[in-house]
Amino acid sequence: MTDTSVTTHAFDAAVDLFPVREDHTEGHTHPAYANMVGPFGGVTAATVLRAIERHPEVLGSPISLTVNFAGPIADGPFDITVRPVRTNRSTQHWSVELAQAGEVTTTATAVFGLRRPTWSSTEVSAPAVPVADSIEPTPLPDYIAWARNYRMRFTDGAVPAEGSAENSDSTSTLWVDDVPARPLDFASLTAMCDIFYPRAFLRLGKAVPAGTVSLTIYYHAGAGTVAAQGTEPLLATARAHRFGEGFFDQSAHLWGRDGALLATSHQVVYFKA
Amino acid sequence: MTDTSVTTHAFDAAVDLFPVREDHTEGHTHPAYANMVGPFGGVTAATVLRAIERHPEVLGSPISLTVNFAGPIADGPFDITVRPVRTNRSTQHWSVELAQAGEVTTTATAVFGLRRPTWSSTEVSAPAVPVADSIEPTPLPDYIAWARNYRMRFTDGAVPAEGSAENSDSTSTLWVDDVPARPLDFASLTAMCDIFYPRAFLRLGKAVPAGTVSLTIYYHAGAGTVAAQGTEPLLATARAHRFGEGFFDQSAHLWGRDGALLATSHQVVYFKA
Repeated sequence: MTDTSVTTHAFDAAVDLFPVREDHTEGHTHPAYANMVGPFGGVTAATVLRAIERHPEVLGSPISLTVNFAGPIADGPFDITVRPVRTNRSTQHWSVELAQAGEVTTTATAVFGLRRPTWSSTEVSAPAVPVADSIEPTPLPDYIAWARNYRMRFTDGAVPAEGSAENSDSTSTLWVDDVPARPLDFASLTAMCDIFYPRAFLRLGKAVPAGTVSLTIYYHAGAGTVAAQGTEPLLATARAHRFGEGFFDQSAHLWGRDGALLATSHQVVYFKA
Repeated sequence: MTDTSVTTHAFDAAVDLFPVREDHTEGHTHPAYANMVGPFGGVTAATVLRAIERHPEVLGSPISLTVNFAGPIADGPFDITVRPVRTNRSTQHWSVELAQAGEVTTTATAVFGLRRPTWSSTEVSAPAVPVADSIEPTPLPDYIAWARNYRMRFTDGAVPAEGSAENSDSTSTLWVDDVPARPLDFASLTAMCDIFYPRAFLRLGKAVPAGTVSLTIYYHAGAGTVAAQGTEPLLATARAHRFGEGFFDQSAHLWGRDGALLATSHQVVYFKA
């Protein structure tokens, strides 16, 4: 823990950007959120979201975000193009690209919009699990730098230990919160949507080469619900539907206080096995 | 049925494009695939996919596609920018925009790639339903032009009749195929991922204003599996997770012959109720 982190959370430093001018800004990778190669995908997605939030023309709050991981991001600065493609009365469409030395590393689109009171219903239920405080954290391996910024308390599908058997079910469910504690915002919710280690590890009982190719998030919470979450842990659950020919998909639900479904998230992942 | 349709299926006419030159091409709306306002979103998504497929630099087959419906498409021609943003050894990232009179109507990103033999597993199962031939088609209302191109045989969650009660479950499951019959390809699979009428209609027992904002598709089938489907109906099932503040999400699975999961698809939909 450096002195800096007392006043600025590493997450805020990781998604920090220069002011957006003429649809351009610049960010910088942060060692605290490094993955095996390049940054944690969740923090890249959060950076994309933050670029839109910082754009002077932004309308409302996020409705959906898709981030495509086109190539590795090298440690260091990156350029962001963040373009409001079309603004309607209640929705706004964005195109975003990250590049290094002129080569695109990441493409993204997003929809932001105004939320208004309507009929509402949450049709699915949060998994029935023990309360967070009753569960011991089971961290990811220590060499995964970004994971040290999260407390992960698995109720199902923790990272398989070396020599584990195959599993027939790819579901992981965990309580997750920032370390040190940090009040939830849309950027940190975005990062937590990518908190799950690759589902192929769980099915095969071992780590294999894998990386997210494309990630989509649907935000079900408005700003008030996100703020009300404060620093309480989220209940996050994910599973795959199909593995084959080098790719698998995964769907996730992130739950907040009082059974609020904060976000649903989907991704397709490249793997070798 | 016009004479033309004897030789060219209306779907092929609807997704037809000029040759792609310098990352640009041009399409045209087709009256047979009209929706209430503008074209059926599924055919717009299929047109995006087709533009990539027609690009001289395309690599492999689709892995994922996200289409954002930014604004209405007027009847008539539209311009398509289709740009291979980055080509890796086994994946290729695309950015696509549709515009009319210089205004963007649709943004999209896609990942194409090479599939290779790996460990495979389909973790979810197709719903247990009666065989297609035992079920009477229940078409959408006749004024929805595009729906006349599909035979829909619902086993669950057909369009609610006028005066229906609310439902507690938003699931629809149907056998779907093209009318007239047409062998499946990636473009028609793409369109079928958007075959479901809005889930809010089913929950509320009535039609309300609604429109897809963003659609994502993950393709689990390679070219061989798609071709093997031929003209046999697909089993398509969809449900929502959360409705509120003007938006709901929906996840769908499309199943083919021999229990093959051809695609999973997700969308966020604007609604008023």
